[in-house]
Amino acid sequence: MIQPAADCSRIKEFINSRDLYAVHNGISVSEIGPGYATARMTMADHMRNGLGMLHGGALFGLADVAFAAASNSHGTMAVGISASMTFVKAATGGMITAEARETSLGPKIATYAITVTDEAGETLATFQGMVYRKKDRIELPPEIPAD
Amino acid sequence: MIQPAADCSRIKEFINSRDLYAVHNGISVSEIGPGYATARMTMADHMRNGLGMLHGGALFGLADVAFAAASNSHGTMAVGISASMTFVKAATGGMITAEARETSLGPKIATYAITVTDEAGETLATFQGMVYRKKDRIELPPEIPAD
Amino acid sequence: MIQPAADCSRIKEFINSRDLYAVHNGISVSEIGPGYATARMTMADHMRNGLGMLHGGALFGLADVAFAAASNSHGTMAVGISASMTFVKAATGGMITAEARETSLGPKIATYAITVTDEAGETLATFQGMVYRKKDRIELPPEIPAD
Amino acid sequence: MIQPAADCSRIKEFINSRDLYAVHNGISVSEIGPGYATARMTMADHMRNGLGMLHGGALFGLADVAFAAASNSHGTMAVGISASMTFVKAATGGMITAEARETSLGPKIATYAITVTDEAGETLATFQGMVYRKKDRIELPPEIPAD
Repeated sequence: MIQPAADCSRIKEFINSRDLYAVHNGISVSEIGPGYATARMTMADHMRNGLGMLHGGALFGLADVAFAAASNSHGTMAVGISASMTFVKAATGGMITAEARETSLGPKIATYAITVTDEAGETLATFQGMVYRKKDRIELPPEIPAD
Repeated sequence: MIQPAADCSRIKEFINSRDLYAVHNGISVSEIGPGYATARMTMADHMRNGLGMLHGGALFGLADVAFAAASNSHGTMAVGISASMTFVKAATGGMITAEARETSLGPKIATYAITVTDEAGETLATFQGMVYRKKDRIELPPEIPAD
Repeated sequence: MIQPAADCSRIKEFINSRDLYAVHNGISVSEIGPGYATARMTMADHMRNGLGMLHGGALFGLADVAFAAASNSHGTMAVGISASMTFVKAATGGMITAEARETSLGPKIATYAITVTDEAGETLATFQGMVYRKKDRIELPPEIPAD
Repeated sequence: MIQPAADCSRIKEFINSRDLYAVHNGISVSEIGPGYATARMTMADHMRNGLGMLHGGALFGLADVAFAAASNSHGTMAVGISASMTFVKAATGGMITAEARETSLGPKIATYAITVTDEAGETLATFQGMVYRKKDRIELPPEIPAD
């Protein structure tokens, strides 16, 4: 039996256990609230490009998970339709954090600004994303396994 | 001893063996030429989001590898500084292909248009990327292991 | 009495006479076909920034008119929802042309790639745009004044 | 004789009197500080598209002027290299405001988030821009005419 989402924290748990891309790439949602989320990853070898630096795809993936968490935090499904990213500083290692804040919330369209920072708080990248909001409620399984 | 890059094909081999992010995410460069590249991946479980669909981060990562191959194909280093993506169709499985074409090439800045398609040739996403071109030649190791 | 749009050429005429922003900024649609359009402007003083160069807003405006023409060429209303632009070369004067090509066409979403070039054919900017497609047919007045 | 820029307020005056694109489109900088600026315009007929709504090019132009003011506020020249915009709500008239905030400031690259709102404070569009920072100081004429 499937239950409707009761609160943001279950969406966080759902992403952290069921989003196989996030799990495979070492990304997890750490905070979530209405229109807000943070996601984190610790820089690992499988995130590096051929020159040993953090890959643009890994940075985008982290920001995208924060974007998905924030945009689905209202309990109805949000589907990403566009995203743009600027790469401002090469990462040198450690914990990388993406913080997503809602910049507009309409009945069909919502937008988010995500900032990606390193442990020193330096901005590595900025990300702007737009979602199409469906009317469907997010259906979560009754029990979420601990991650 | 390190040798300068002689041709595009060695850059393809370099990415396919040394880009740990690409390897970890099942992405490989399949074609490369001056200002041109294609990259491919076969949809796998570790590319899915919590709803079972291809993750936006996985789609971006594939396009980003084609972008990196095309922009580094001239033998000098190119660093991605901005990228934007539109998500137009959900992937249903199979082989996904990203094709990168150069849309401008200046001494410092170059731009690329990448189209991501499924096996039926349907467009899944479009990607526009810009690089800063360094003067440094790409130094490749003398022997590249076969991929 | 209002008639439905019969063909692309009437949409070109409609934009060139009724789009007050385009008229005010010296922009006109020169070619149109299904999913395709070009728009032009001749560089004038009112398009310059404080340093005497072509303003980014003027470049975007030109590309946006080509984008609107191409995306409305199918006879049903298309509303721009996102756009990204890269600025690759400063314009030095003369005729500036934006060419819009459709990169995907779905029932609700369509995407376009626009390239802006100078008289020498050099790329000044690239533009990627996405529209939401409404079901409403574009209603044009029965007589369009010659532009 | 030309004097170097002493402070942000002269850059505001310079844009408001010498940026011919801004003047022609009814846009003026209203506030400026280090890494920060707002620009305004009152909706007028020459900003409308063929359907009578605020043109995407007019919205972008307003945001672009705020972006230019904020990115040149440090006294050295900043050149826009990429920008992306999401259009979230159609404008209905009145005063439109763009507020630009710096999201990162490096020696060569800086990024800005611009939000465009109507009189009711509703978000109409979001804009993310990146500049290349030159070493040249902005040279302003010794006397700026009052705007």
